[in-house]
Amino acid sequence: MSVAGGTPSSMEALVLLGPGDFELREVPTPIPAADEVLCRVRACAICGTDPKIVKGAFPGVWPKSYPAIIGHEWAGEVVALGPEVAASPRLAARFAPGTRVAGEAHKGCGGCANCLAGHYTICQNYGDLESGHRHYGFTAPGAYAQYVVSSVKALHPLPDALSFDDGAMLDTAGVALQGIRRGRVGVGDTLVVLGPGPIGMFTVQYGRAAGAGRAIVVGRGDRLRRAEPFGAIPIDYEAVDPVEQVRELTGGEGADVVIECAGTKTACTQAVGMTKKGDAW
Amino acid sequence: MSVAGGTPSSMEALVLLGPGDFELREVPTPIPAADEVLCRVRACAICGTDPKIVKGAFPGVWPKSYPAIIGHEWAGEVVALGPEVAASPRLAARFAPGTRVAGEAHKGCGGCANCLAGHYTICQNYGDLESGHRHYGFTAPGAYAQYVVSSVKALHPLPDALSFDDGAMLDTAGVALQGIRRGRVGVGDTLVVLGPGPIGMFTVQYGRAAGAGRAIVVGRGDRLRRAEPFGAIPIDYEAVDPVEQVRELTGGEGADVVIECAGTKTACTQAVGMTKKGDAW
Amino acid sequence: MSVAGGTPSSMEALVLLGPGDFELREVPTPIPAADEVLCRVRACAICGTDPKIVKGAFPGVWPKSYPAIIGHEWAGEVVALGPEVAASPRLAARFAPGTRVAGEAHKGCGGCANCLAGHYTICQNYGDLESGHRHYGFTAPGAYAQYVVSSVKALHPLPDALSFDDGAMLDTAGVALQGIRRGRVGVGDTLVVLGPGPIGMFTVQYGRAAGAGRAIVVGRGDRLRRAEPFGAIPIDYEAVDPVEQVRELTGGEGADVVIECAGTKTACTQAVGMTKKGDAW
Amino acid sequence: MSVAGGTPSSMEALVLLGPGDFELREVPTPIPAADEVLCRVRACAICGTDPKIVKGAFPGVWPKSYPAIIGHEWAGEVVALGPEVAASPRLAARFAPGTRVAGEAHKGCGGCANCLAGHYTICQNYGDLESGHRHYGFTAPGAYAQYVVSSVKALHPLPDALSFDDGAMLDTAGVALQGIRRGRVGVGDTLVVLGPGPIGMFTVQYGRAAGAGRAIVVGRGDRLRRAEPFGAIPIDYEAVDPVEQVRELTGGEGADVVIECAGTKTACTQAVGMTKKGDAW
Repeated sequence: MSVAGGTPSSMEALVLLGPGDFELREVPTPIPAADEVLCRVRACAICGTDPKIVKGAFPGVWPKSYPAIIGHEWAGEVVALGPEVAASPRLAARFAPGTRVAGEAHKGCGGCANCLAGHYTICQNYGDLESGHRHYGFTAPGAYAQYVVSSVKALHPLPDALSFDDGAMLDTAGVALQGIRRGRVGVGDTLVVLGPGPIGMFTVQYGRAAGAGRAIVVGRGDRLRRAEPFGAIPIDYEAVDPVEQVRELTGGEGADVVIECAGTKTACTQAVGMTKKGDAW
Repeated sequence: MSVAGGTPSSMEALVLLGPGDFELREVPTPIPAADEVLCRVRACAICGTDPKIVKGAFPGVWPKSYPAIIGHEWAGEVVALGPEVAASPRLAARFAPGTRVAGEAHKGCGGCANCLAGHYTICQNYGDLESGHRHYGFTAPGAYAQYVVSSVKALHPLPDALSFDDGAMLDTAGVALQGIRRGRVGVGDTLVVLGPGPIGMFTVQYGRAAGAGRAIVVGRGDRLRRAEPFGAIPIDYEAVDPVEQVRELTGGEGADVVIECAGTKTACTQAVGMTKKGDAW
Repeated sequence: MSVAGGTPSSMEALVLLGPGDFELREVPTPIPAADEVLCRVRACAICGTDPKIVKGAFPGVWPKSYPAIIGHEWAGEVVALGPEVAASPRLAARFAPGTRVAGEAHKGCGGCANCLAGHYTICQNYGDLESGHRHYGFTAPGAYAQYVVSSVKALHPLPDALSFDDGAMLDTAGVALQGIRRGRVGVGDTLVVLGPGPIGMFTVQYGRAAGAGRAIVVGRGDRLRRAEPFGAIPIDYEAVDPVEQVRELTGGEGADVVIECAGTKTACTQAVGMTKKGDAW
Repeated sequence: MSVAGGTPSSMEALVLLGPGDFELREVPTPIPAADEVLCRVRACAICGTDPKIVKGAFPGVWPKSYPAIIGHEWAGEVVALGPEVAASPRLAARFAPGTRVAGEAHKGCGGCANCLAGHYTICQNYGDLESGHRHYGFTAPGAYAQYVVSSVKALHPLPDALSFDDGAMLDTAGVALQGIRRGRVGVGDTLVVLGPGPIGMFTVQYGRAAGAGRAIVVGRGDRLRRAEPFGAIPIDYEAVDPVEQVRELTGGEGADVVIECAGTKTACTQAVGMTKKGDAW
């Protein structure tokens, strides 16, 4: 029996059974809801938050209950359409089976004030499945599996030039791009990125794409070294005081834009200390 | 037979039959779709565009075909819920029968890039009913009738302090408020409004609410006179050159913000001529 | 002998002699530099920072050295013009002797990148008198005296409707207005002001002028009570948790704009906790 | 006799004698005012406005009177300092004789509301030399000469990597950069530039530096062809309708940002027609 032509009715998935408890299991292949499609997962990355979820760091929230399937950085191929998608010639063409797609984790309810204003990642009905909200891989099933369902609102067709591995970075890259836009990085700016993790690395690249004259990255170890091929000036916070270093590199003035991607209190304090006074808004 | 408890299965409506051809007719009461509610219309205003639609000025667009019911500036009471609304405790409570509501004309498809970014009035699937887009009173049935259906996305519960007549102005007021926000009218600004029609009048009032130190209105006749109780300085374009007058009232500098609500080429040209150089963005 | 017609060559001033050490002394009346005017001080307020300066809390900075005259919240009358002002028919008319004026504390060097970009309160040559920068009452002589000099760049003619006492609040009011503009307080917004001191009180008033639907003030004691006549909703942080209260007053969502005018770490943390997620920029 | 060590007291200059009337003459070398320096001109470009000024197209304005020296796109070397510059160790170091510099045309009065807000190119005392305002090459002497004076406010030291010829493009490049910043060109945007003149060409380059995914240039002839090496997609308005072409290249939506650098009514109308609805501000 199959959900769609050729799609098996069961699949392998990494199933969380409890805090720190998981195993590879055979489970029913999910069935896409009205505005969803079923996709074969071709690549899925491990977000820094995922191991914490696995360990049970967010009880009752991520996941809401056990058993659960997480994973939200993925790309794959459409294999079957939910009824509304199938009924719409426009959507059926855009998401025809075989279409290569990448997934966003957030899908808003679509009706609250935040969603209507375009801020669906802060949907006022977060976690309320009945409202239509989905946070795939967090409050709704994710992509640590052979198949995953996703609303077409959260899916983007993947250009040929991007591999499935590239596509699995869509959500991460989007977070970084939003930071560059909100921070209004401009031509010639000196940009500092605190934290050379995945979001930090994308932030450096988008910052340079946005015209930053210099991108400085504060971090340590291997990750810091890996920022250099992207043209970043590395500052090792274990070796020097990053605030002093940035001040020195900017003639005492501080950087035009500082983006904190480390998620620590120390980094937040350093960010304030190394930012130039004033702005042009 | 009734659509909902007490709701008659037919209603009176002003039905457009062709360009310039309309009559009051008995038609079936509309049935709310999944995300819609049925409302008893208690007030409906006539937009300046409505008589043009009646005359057939937008053939094949507004309305798409005949017979048609228009009218998009309305308020009323919820009388019946579509299935999705009824199934959601949250929505069923917010839009319980008897709730006084006011309607917006635009309801986006919810899935295109513009809708996802919060710009649903410029939905990329405008007029495509299949996509979920509705422009009530234009491409979808409106409120020149005893009953109207509307998506809950386009409905706002009416505070007790506002009458149904007030509520029927929601859409018009929203257009004006958006202009004040986009124009960034600030404390102490000199604001000029060209065109003392309904949107212009709301613009004056929101402009003053936003702190405009002076609101100048350019117009003529009765409408111009009606701007004065709102604290506006009137300029009669039949008597004087409005550009010169604004320059004179502003020491030669021009106004901080000028909002064009007349919709004429002349007004656009005047707006450019009376605006201060530079800005603080 | 007199500096200008009728201006005595000496004046009384409150002179700081050292940390915590001051006395009323007869000192020479200051002589306006090229772009300055001499003013008779008619009102001078005591900023919260002034007693700290008197006590010597900023050694070597405010004041740079002793003896010193501070005071930067003042209004008065022009009595004599510096040579460049006198030589300019335009400036001589604008600042004719007898003109009622209010003073700003900051006067930028006019030539650094920040001044050229309009950010003269963060002049890159702060405190460098040779550059032309002046921070009257801090790094340059102030208005705790019968006479004070000020660059015309830092002076604003006082409208008839404002008293000298009102005028002495110019600098304080300007700080508050800038906060309302930078915070983009808009029509209908819920605004929270932390700290009902002078800047907080002006922030409430400008916030309401800018259209805030509600202004909530967090504070304690007399100052908090004094916010009520301005239409503010008071929250006494000694009696309740202000973050919880604001959340409750806003249906759990937080305030649209929160402006921190208390200057404490606690207030900063509370501000973050009571602000609504997302924005419309 | 010399103005400064080695600087001759007279120089050669292209002197305008009347509309369409000019000659190379020996004139006195100008003497820098207090905040000015004297520079040896090493490169001076011809702005599109210059031939119009030469022909007398702006009588009484540019130049105010004859004889006059124009030219405002220049770079050169500092040779002598005005008294205030010489007296300031900071400025004397920054503009030491021999320093390579490039000039801006506008120098604001520094004291009007626009200058204080950072908008010195729209100084309220435009053309009033007594106020301190200078528009070098327009209302004040320019650089079609061996020497020119300029306020240090309008001078930028030239990095070693830039030649004098490059430096002469400073003012032109700045106009283009301001357009890219005001238009908020962002990563991935489709940018259209109307008019492949010098400002248009810089706009394309800064637009690409700011992350524009595509830069489309509308023009004709040689200038259009010269846009291609900068990675621009050319549209020849003599061969096709540029509005239709841009619509076609953008799937019907229009471009994210359109910058009009042609200065014609037709280009303005086309710009409106080819811009995408909505924005992300």
